[in-house]
Amino acid sequence: MKEIVVPSSSHTYSVWIGEGLLKNVSKYLQKEYSSIFVITDDVVEKLYLQTLLESLPKVHKAVAVVAAGEQSKNITTYYRLQTEAIEAGLDRNSLIIALGGGVVGDIAGFVAATYMRGIDYIQVPTTVLAHDSSVGGKVAINHEQGKNLIGSFYPPAAVLYDVDTLATLPPQEIRSGYAEIVKEALISDKEAFERLLQVNLHDLTKEELQEHLSFGIEVKTAIVTADEKEKGERKFLNLGHTLGHAIETELQYQLLKHGEAVAVGLLFSLFVSEDLFQADVSFSKLYGWLSDNGYPLPAEMLDPEILLKRMKTDKKAQAGKVQMVLLKDIGQPTTAVLDDEQIVHYIKRFRERLVRG
Amino acid sequence: MKEIVVPSSSHTYSVWIGEGLLKNVSKYLQKEYSSIFVITDDVVEKLYLQTLLESLPKVHKAVAVVAAGEQSKNITTYYRLQTEAIEAGLDRNSLIIALGGGVVGDIAGFVAATYMRGIDYIQVPTTVLAHDSSVGGKVAINHEQGKNLIGSFYPPAAVLYDVDTLATLPPQEIRSGYAEIVKEALISDKEAFERLLQVNLHDLTKEELQEHLSFGIEVKTAIVTADEKEKGERKFLNLGHTLGHAIETELQYQLLKHGEAVAVGLLFSLFVSEDLFQADVSFSKLYGWLSDNGYPLPAEMLDPEILLKRMKTDKKAQAGKVQMVLLKDIGQPTTAVLDDEQIVHYIKRFRERLVRG
Repeated sequence: MKEIVVPSSSHTYSVWIGEGLLKNVSKYLQKEYSSIFVITDDVVEKLYLQTLLESLPKVHKAVAVVAAGEQSKNITTYYRLQTEAIEAGLDRNSLIIALGGGVVGDIAGFVAATYMRGIDYIQVPTTVLAHDSSVGGKVAINHEQGKNLIGSFYPPAAVLYDVDTLATLPPQEIRSGYAEIVKEALISDKEAFERLLQVNLHDLTKEELQEHLSFGIEVKTAIVTADEKEKGERKFLNLGHTLGHAIETELQYQLLKHGEAVAVGLLFSLFVSEDLFQADVSFSKLYGWLSDNGYPLPAEMLDPEILLKRMKTDKKAQAGKVQMVLLKDIGQPTTAVLDDEQIVHYIKRFRERLVRG
Repeated sequence: MKEIVVPSSSHTYSVWIGEGLLKNVSKYLQKEYSSIFVITDDVVEKLYLQTLLESLPKVHKAVAVVAAGEQSKNITTYYRLQTEAIEAGLDRNSLIIALGGGVVGDIAGFVAATYMRGIDYIQVPTTVLAHDSSVGGKVAINHEQGKNLIGSFYPPAAVLYDVDTLATLPPQEIRSGYAEIVKEALISDKEAFERLLQVNLHDLTKEELQEHLSFGIEVKTAIVTADEKEKGERKFLNLGHTLGHAIETELQYQLLKHGEAVAVGLLFSLFVSEDLFQADVSFSKLYGWLSDNGYPLPAEMLDPEILLKRMKTDKKAQAGKVQMVLLKDIGQPTTAVLDDEQIVHYIKRFRERLVRG
């Protein structure tokens, strides 16, 4: 069992990573709650809900289930969860548990952040991807005009990461999660990046998985500790996300998983960085690794004008211009504001590069 | 011009109270914003929007107007305001200005708290009632099952209280606002309470108004400074609100203004306090003053069973039981958890008392 301690402006909390956590949730609760409200999705429900419920203390419990997938992160589902929380009799001393991937964590966290002006919640991530979203307190829902546009900074009371739950993940989910781990390496640690590119995602051991998850969470923890509210370096965690979010929004969260869209965004960031800074930041290496590991890199969906418009509603946009995270070198992220023409130009050239293969 | 400084966990902000503020808003902005989004209602819009807009710096501006009245504090209006903010191109360096009463302040504040995970906002209250809601950072919308059930603690960047805007208020609005000032006196200061009961609301000077507002804000500031997140004494500010909110919700925010419903709640709290603590907390005096000043005290709407159900979804409820703020003496608030039977019993007897007159 590994414990990573995350300080935040309101309180300090622990991320526990290991096996068998789901069966022992009670042990990790720091106080007595009047009632517990579990929010999960209809896929995770069948796999792990029962185990979780049996491991909880004997107080009043209720469960809400959302449809699996990014589409659930909308205002209608958010309001329905608020209604169910009220009807379940949750009060200010109640606990919400988010059992699932990033979607469940984000929406359940935002419900907790705003239910009666904020109650405790615990993240129980069941995907690799959620290692990223479950730490750092960013919670949100999507607006049809952009991802995560409505949300709060609201850190959890704890994160319980049971690696046993990752055994059932389909390859697409593994890929999606690893894109964020690659991102964490790219912005922090050249050697870790090189080691990661040795990994074959089709053939991953439990030990490797646990090691990579811990690495990703440690990178993230260091950054959010230094800059909780994203005034400075926390922005770097958005490497690959400006284009990634634009693609996701344009595809209405279909076809590509979040991390798969981020992978395209990461590659684009390296493409732009190499041109803008005349530096080698391993574009070709990453391109090779993504291809080898089955990441979809569909050139045809890269419409420059449409994506530019989407990128301009990104939260990092400044006075109407796109702000991207780029790399001067691996481990040396920076931000740059790009003109509309530059963005269009780079997307066109990037698309050509992908078509060439 | 009076300045009251309010510390909060995230930053310290000033409440300015005086004349001519609306014409000089630029002077009170602490930083340069990329754009400004004004949220107001359709009554205040006609009276003060133009003056406000002319006093703002020359950056991109947009305006959103909601229907006046508590019904606007709902999820649909909230989401529409988020959409308008996105379409107006607001980014993380933008400012929201809440121009209006408590409804506008609460919903605009909650939009600011959750737009891109939080941007700055300024309260420009235009009612007496809003002296209470504009200070302390509580922002929220209503759920159909209860008032302010969805919200955040999110303090403003400043509060600009232009007393000139209070000149146009109808008597009902003055009454509504003064109920909160009476509450602030009841929980803190016997002499201030006695002085307030000398006031005739039909015949109020500008100096009295300014003095009473400052008194109310100072009481509130002292309490929220000591207990920002309502773990303890901030609860006392809810004196009169448990029944008040129940009445409002039951009436669907029609017929009675918020402060008028609170006035009924205050009287009920004194009624219960006198019986439970066998103390004289001026029930009869307050009853007389409310009657003299035209507060509606409609016994017929006090249905014990219906109100009990509503009171149990109050945010202060604990494990399904009603928690009320009561007074051991004037200036000595306390909380008590009451059984369902007690609540029903007291509402019945209170109703009989009002019928008797």
